[in-house]
Amino acid sequence: MAVSYTIALDAMGGDHGVSVIVPAAQQALREYNDLALILVGQPAAIEPELKAWKASERERIRIQPASEVVGMDELPSQALRNKKDSSMRVAVNLVKQGEAAACVSAGNTGALMATARYVLKTLPGIDRPAIITAIPAIDGHTHMLDLGANVDCSAEHLYQFAVMGSELASAVDNIPAPRIGLLNIGEEEIKGSDAIRQAARLLENSHLNYIGFVEGNDIYGDRVDVVVCDGFIGNVSLKTSEGVARMISHFARTEFNRNWLTRLSGLLAMPVLKAFRRRIDPGRYNGASLLGLQGIVIKSHGGADAAAFANAIGIARMEAQKSIPQRIDKRLEALLSQQKAAPA
Amino acid sequence: MAVSYTIALDAMGGDHGVSVIVPAAQQALREYNDLALILVGQPAAIEPELKAWKASERERIRIQPASEVVGMDELPSQALRNKKDSSMRVAVNLVKQGEAAACVSAGNTGALMATARYVLKTLPGIDRPAIITAIPAIDGHTHMLDLGANVDCSAEHLYQFAVMGSELASAVDNIPAPRIGLLNIGEEEIKGSDAIRQAARLLENSHLNYIGFVEGNDIYGDRVDVVVCDGFIGNVSLKTSEGVARMISHFARTEFNRNWLTRLSGLLAMPVLKAFRRRIDPGRYNGASLLGLQGIVIKSHGGADAAAFANAIGIARMEAQKSIPQRIDKRLEALLSQQKAAPA
Repeated sequence: MAVSYTIALDAMGGDHGVSVIVPAAQQALREYNDLALILVGQPAAIEPELKAWKASERERIRIQPASEVVGMDELPSQALRNKKDSSMRVAVNLVKQGEAAACVSAGNTGALMATARYVLKTLPGIDRPAIITAIPAIDGHTHMLDLGANVDCSAEHLYQFAVMGSELASAVDNIPAPRIGLLNIGEEEIKGSDAIRQAARLLENSHLNYIGFVEGNDIYGDRVDVVVCDGFIGNVSLKTSEGVARMISHFARTEFNRNWLTRLSGLLAMPVLKAFRRRIDPGRYNGASLLGLQGIVIKSHGGADAAAFANAIGIARMEAQKSIPQRIDKRLEALLSQQKAAPA
Repeated sequence: MAVSYTIALDAMGGDHGVSVIVPAAQQALREYNDLALILVGQPAAIEPELKAWKASERERIRIQPASEVVGMDELPSQALRNKKDSSMRVAVNLVKQGEAAACVSAGNTGALMATARYVLKTLPGIDRPAIITAIPAIDGHTHMLDLGANVDCSAEHLYQFAVMGSELASAVDNIPAPRIGLLNIGEEEIKGSDAIRQAARLLENSHLNYIGFVEGNDIYGDRVDVVVCDGFIGNVSLKTSEGVARMISHFARTEFNRNWLTRLSGLLAMPVLKAFRRRIDPGRYNGASLLGLQGIVIKSHGGADAAAFANAIGIARMEAQKSIPQRIDKRLEALLSQQKAAPA
């Protein structure tokens, strides 16, 4: 099969750098035979990790040298100004230049967002890019945005997030009109901040399949496909979920380890526990999109292992396949021309 | 043992009214022999539920008639204006009049807050009451406030929440200096809204054991005793947690029900699963305090069962025993006199 998608990887980013990202690249190449990868970073660090690779796998990668690395705690503005030859920056440049259909980085989120925004620019009609990811839910998954790029959001921003989220969910899940919900603290219309209430009005009058306010528990339920919120709430909500899941698995471990009898019952229940764990495995959901840019940029969790990073590569490939930025652009163009045709 | 604590119950409130609250009252009386209860509501509804009670139990209750009931979706302002003889209002009045040391209601949160604030007033130095509850955590539990009373909070409000939360945690958990964290989306000082950053400065210069910013996952961890946030974030975070827990138990059930073998292993693991479920049973944590008032008001979950409502009664009793409002009042008085002594 011919190569259809070339994706650039920031090989130096994240907590583990090349030791995780190079094996992840190999895993992704084995999974998708229409894929080629560009490993961006220091050749001296990358080369040794490629030793055990087969020639057929090496054919589908190339190394793009980049001398610098953005630190996980580096200020975005400083990374942008001072690290013009960072692996992150060069990976994003490859998307800009059309050499890669998408890029994936496990590096510093703020720096990646600032770099991507500076290099790729936002789509016409989008003020701010947002971070979106799929989250496991009873009926499959829910898409949620923004997850931390924008602390304060106006009604207009939330509306733009909804438009982008709807296009992405529609393309990814093959549903014509994804159900859009606005995260709030109650379903009565009196609740919530001014921005949220105004956003609700914008959404009610939009082309979107807006179902109204949803609450935190709905993220994991089956009544909504896309949950829209500001980045502060989204981030707290995601981190809270991680905390609950971790506590629950801690308690489960504690109870199964109580004595030999409980350990035995844990052993017998192992296949069930494994199947269960697979369902909520965060690695299966690793890979958030920076949505609203003129290009595809995927953020992997900094601590991702190879399987989880490979999942993020899979998401990048899928978004390239579905031409997500082009789809959003088209929708925005239609909305903007409608606005011009019928000024308020 | 003599009666030490008399607690008023809004017998008509919540999704189930007397059918849950009267049995919960009985359960609480059996658990605490220093307790007396006032069942507030329509005698014709309450009396039939008392038929099976023993005379010794009946001795420790009395019915306080109240003709009206506040609806679960009624606007707080309307309940306050129009329902002066509601079971909720009369229960709060009993606290005001000193006939009850505390009251418990499973009714409409907004109406309860408005009523409690109107009847009991806030403590001097407190602008707005907050809702606080204990949440299960790896190391026992974490107290979190505000959980929905205040959508927008200034730095000063957040600071007041921290003072109140610290006093409550100190009294309840017998720890001299509870660790106070401010909920934010990152631990770097550049993140978060203006109000949160200003609150951080107030807390750094306070008498409190302020440990800095915490993230959503820390609520369920072991590094913080009191998590402070505005009511919007707190409510979303709590509802999100409920959603995650529900999804996880849904998946666990699905996996254990897959076939006869998995069902068998579930049966064998039953004691473990039960012990585990007890640990995260929301009923064990039912009962949130409306903190900052001149009196003790406990809000039970609207859908609570008898055991969960009895738990809320236990919390009311414990707060009466620990004189929570008086403790907070004393602390605020000390802070206010310090401010007067050393004006900025």
